[in-house]
Amino acid sequence: MTTTSPHTPAALREAFSHFPQGVVLIGAEVGGAPQGLVASTFTVGVSLDPPLVSFAVQHTSETWPLLRTAPRLGVSLMGRRQIDTTRKLAAMDRDRRFDGVDFAVDDGGALTVCGTPVRLHTRIHGEVRAGDHDIVLLEVLGIDSVPDTPAMVFHRSSFKELVALRLSA
Amino acid sequence: MTTTSPHTPAALREAFSHFPQGVVLIGAEVGGAPQGLVASTFTVGVSLDPPLVSFAVQHTSETWPLLRTAPRLGVSLMGRRQIDTTRKLAAMDRDRRFDGVDFAVDDGGALTVCGTPVRLHTRIHGEVRAGDHDIVLLEVLGIDSVPDTPAMVFHRSSFKELVALRLSA
Repeated sequence: MTTTSPHTPAALREAFSHFPQGVVLIGAEVGGAPQGLVASTFTVGVSLDPPLVSFAVQHTSETWPLLRTAPRLGVSLMGRRQIDTTRKLAAMDRDRRFDGVDFAVDDGGALTVCGTPVRLHTRIHGEVRAGDHDIVLLEVLGIDSVPDTPAMVFHRSSFKELVALRLSA
Repeated sequence: MTTTSPHTPAALREAFSHFPQGVVLIGAEVGGAPQGLVASTFTVGVSLDPPLVSFAVQHTSETWPLLRTAPRLGVSLMGRRQIDTTRKLAAMDRDRRFDGVDFAVDDGGALTVCGTPVRLHTRIHGEVRAGDHDIVLLEVLGIDSVPDTPAMVFHRSSFKELVALRLSA
């Protein structure tokens, strides 16, 4: 067993890597240009009434100040078929992130990635300061899902697919 | 494609089931008795400085009012070897949840489940109202992890294991 003190960022990141996390793109069209933020802190089921989901964004993010001005935000869950797209969207070069990415923009400006297992149409419900990040609460206005589209998670610094477990006798 | 309006809880739960979620036990010994809450809304990386994690708990929870009185809370990530334990800990009969479960309690009263891939020792940093739940922020004080302990996630109403993806050429 490894016992870690959480007092260095590297040790903390290593420890946190044990927790499997889904990866989403939070997106909107802002001033005619696609903008998006890849997040691994996205959580559903924060509330059912009203329907709320959440994610955490660093105070140093340069994309969030743009996205938060949009009237609607899209959330796309990255699936097994979006690994290359996810890497591209997470790239540092913000101007070229969407090159070759197949996306859609709804009437409210919410941007979602085509072919993903599930896409949410949301608006900001609130923001809460949490250490060096803000937790953003999003209200879900609509959901598009495609059954049987393979999912994936980020775990131990790798993308992994999900395989149903057989129940032991 | 299925387009869902999030206006019924059943439709919302179905849509949310597309998002893979890790499952944790939030636990403490309270008044000499083990108490625990199974949560699928747990999120790491909410903040690195201070190190914060979060989960959402329903206002109707009967266990959370007990747990929140404890000076320290344990967080155990349920792995592939804890499927039966997870079902037991999520059972309605609170008095018998820990029967046959191998757990440890630290000096601060934080309760963790033995054999899990990673266990956190935490204290409450804050609570934020979010619709019909509260978001609880926990500060991480210590981390125990066991490398190569298989993880699992809850997805589409089933427990699933994680398999490394081969990169396409």
